[in-house]
Amino acid sequence: MNNKRIYLNAFVMNTPGHMSAGLWTHPDNDASGYRKSEYWIKLARLLEKGRFDAVFLADVLGTYDVYRGSRDPAVRRGAQAPVNDPSYIVPLMSAVTNHLGFGLTASVTHEHPYTFARRMTTLDHLTNGRVGWNIVTSYLNSAAVNIGLDKQIGHDERYDIAQEYLEVCYKLWEESWEEDAVVADKETGIYANPEKVHDIHHEGKYYKVPGAHLSEPSPQRTPVLFQAGASPRGREFASKNAELVFINAPSIEAGRETVKRLRADFEKNGRKPEDIKILTMLTPIIGETEESAHQKLEEFKKHISHEGAFALFGGWTGIDLSEFDDDDVLTYVENDSMRSVIEVLTRVDPDKQWTIKELRDFIGIGGISAYVVGSPEQVADELEQWMEEAGVDGFNLAHTTSPGTFKEFIEHVVPILQERGRVPKEYEGATLRDNLFGQGDRLPEDHPGKSTRKVRF
Amino acid sequence: MNNKRIYLNAFVMNTPGHMSAGLWTHPDNDASGYRKSEYWIKLARLLEKGRFDAVFLADVLGTYDVYRGSRDPAVRRGAQAPVNDPSYIVPLMSAVTNHLGFGLTASVTHEHPYTFARRMTTLDHLTNGRVGWNIVTSYLNSAAVNIGLDKQIGHDERYDIAQEYLEVCYKLWEESWEEDAVVADKETGIYANPEKVHDIHHEGKYYKVPGAHLSEPSPQRTPVLFQAGASPRGREFASKNAELVFINAPSIEAGRETVKRLRADFEKNGRKPEDIKILTMLTPIIGETEESAHQKLEEFKKHISHEGAFALFGGWTGIDLSEFDDDDVLTYVENDSMRSVIEVLTRVDPDKQWTIKELRDFIGIGGISAYVVGSPEQVADELEQWMEEAGVDGFNLAHTTSPGTFKEFIEHVVPILQERGRVPKEYEGATLRDNLFGQGDRLPEDHPGKSTRKVRF
Repeated sequence: MNNKRIYLNAFVMNTPGHMSAGLWTHPDNDASGYRKSEYWIKLARLLEKGRFDAVFLADVLGTYDVYRGSRDPAVRRGAQAPVNDPSYIVPLMSAVTNHLGFGLTASVTHEHPYTFARRMTTLDHLTNGRVGWNIVTSYLNSAAVNIGLDKQIGHDERYDIAQEYLEVCYKLWEESWEEDAVVADKETGIYANPEKVHDIHHEGKYYKVPGAHLSEPSPQRTPVLFQAGASPRGREFASKNAELVFINAPSIEAGRETVKRLRADFEKNGRKPEDIKILTMLTPIIGETEESAHQKLEEFKKHISHEGAFALFGGWTGIDLSEFDDDDVLTYVENDSMRSVIEVLTRVDPDKQWTIKELRDFIGIGGISAYVVGSPEQVADELEQWMEEAGVDGFNLAHTTSPGTFKEFIEHVVPILQERGRVPKEYEGATLRDNLFGQGDRLPEDHPGKSTRKVRF
Repeated sequence: MNNKRIYLNAFVMNTPGHMSAGLWTHPDNDASGYRKSEYWIKLARLLEKGRFDAVFLADVLGTYDVYRGSRDPAVRRGAQAPVNDPSYIVPLMSAVTNHLGFGLTASVTHEHPYTFARRMTTLDHLTNGRVGWNIVTSYLNSAAVNIGLDKQIGHDERYDIAQEYLEVCYKLWEESWEEDAVVADKETGIYANPEKVHDIHHEGKYYKVPGAHLSEPSPQRTPVLFQAGASPRGREFASKNAELVFINAPSIEAGRETVKRLRADFEKNGRKPEDIKILTMLTPIIGETEESAHQKLEEFKKHISHEGAFALFGGWTGIDLSEFDDDDVLTYVENDSMRSVIEVLTRVDPDKQWTIKELRDFIGIGGISAYVVGSPEQVADELEQWMEEAGVDGFNLAHTTSPGTFKEFIEHVVPILQERGRVPKEYEGATLRDNLFGQGDRLPEDHPGKSTRKVRF
């Protein structure tokens, strides 16, 4: 066993109930305080104390409405509804920390790249270079109609739009302002040398942006690029652009295949393996002993909202499980998402015939992803097993209770992982990118955001 | 003389140089630290200690490029360029204060109301109800082209769009979620009652928003509405919607006329006088004595960037002063903005023939608005004179140096105004609206955002 470092993200969302539907009702869960600054400030301090690399802020601009053809179940059960804007949490959490990074989810279909690029640069300045962008290309139909689109754009076209959106951002972030454009010299009264600030002259299929970036360069320029992409087109997009890829593997076996496929994609796109980290989602359930951890899991299960779990499942897969009975066995149907869900469950337990009821209990804790249950030692062992056998670089840790899950993990598991040389005791870089890759604050030279000069100066 | 309360806003922008071009070069000016959290956190603490009502965050999504037909002068002199997003400053400043309010500038032409409404609700939650929105309808041509519009929308149509944009926001903020929709009951597992969460069914000329608001109601629901409108259509819009109107009067005489016209407009639109506050922009220059204040002014004038001042002037008026010589006397030209500038200057000194050079020195300190120069007593006297004679409710205080101007004002002038019963010693309301109007957190019942039920439940 080598001592490959484990990267740790906390997976949260600006909503009462994130991945574990109904768990906001647990007495130890403070997540229904999500609206207030104090909740996030406290969490930020905890995560930095616990040597987490970043907090990953999920988002969805809409309410899940597939289950029973209605948004009511999601609203009633606080299942990712209501949901506030994730970006304003970043300056709050960064003001009380020095190293913790932030992976902010934002969709390329919700805002023009010219204004979005300024938002991210502003955040990168305010956080001293600790911002990441989780690039989302898809969105719900319920979101699309509310922002004036008649319906969702086709899946593949979304990636074409996303690629051009990134091009615009890269030009604004990387090429518009030269490194020494800003002098801010009080003697000469020169703030910036205009001849070093360039119009980007972008004219593409989807966007026209003739001008220069409004903001001066921030510590990282381009935020660290996060992406999750499962479809072939999504994987291609991630392989080109992402620096941190986030997967959702329900078992080590499933994770291994995904990681293998992703690493091959990266290589095909000429990316260096050390420039990309793959994190898998995992929900840790930690007890003093294995037995008490399982008791805790049973206790958590009592708080699952079935309706909420089905609402989330409907949103993720497009499948309305209200058409089935509790004891119905899951069977293949003509739906890609359903097929992949069943494949996933089969990997969790290949000999099992899953019923709707069992599916519900499974997804009730952490959604369609793995959870690890055990004593701190056991959880640490299992994380190491994932590292070795699935080949991931770390974990996007979802919670059953917040800050409870993170607190337990930090108090009991992180020290073990540090003892084993898996998690550094100190932060190693100033910016998020430097902390993750140890090669400076900026995109590597061979990254597509950097490698070609696109601006006609 | 009665003791009518004086409302105090600090006027700032997320940029090195705001209203006083070139003054960022003054040794006491920290404003070139605008990129960093610490600058804003320090300023927030100072302003709350000084019993300011709010900080007014200006913004412009573009770079002024009228002077010499180029953006280079603005970029070179840090004249509102570069400029970062103002909204991320709000959670930073609110986290270290309990009462200070925030007037955030955002244009209705830069983001869809559905996503914008969620942003503002999120901020209102995080600040415990201390957010205001400075509604901007206009924008620069340089901004328009970069967000994919071929050119600016016509002036009057902009106000039609703005009115519909507000309608959408009002519906989302005021009517989508009923007051008791959220129960967050851990016993029953009900987060919200879906039958009390309503689709807004908005179908207008410019926007279609069928769905419900994504966020649960925040303390104020609708943020306090700020607006500056000088044109007839702008005044009409402000008269209908605004709660805090911000004017830019270069003299008491000019201010009196504007205030009179505005109050008549409010009355015509059925608004109660006590529901609207009018603040005028003013730049205070404070010395221990009158003489030392004037010395300070002369010292500040040495730091004016002529090029920067002309760049700002060009952006505000559309007039390129590079066509004139320093000693040319300002004359009427066929340009509404120029006419109003000259009218303004004539009011400052009716017997004077203004040269380009004199105009430049005038606008170099605080832009086209008044400055008051004197000892703390004299400044306090002059503010009271503005209150009495122009009939304003308070001031939007621009700075020559930041935090210098605010620090001096707070240490020397605020105590005098408190002594005179003009500025309360304590904050009186929890939310910004309650602090300003003393009538609770929400829009008054007869405000157009509230008075008509627009949602077909």
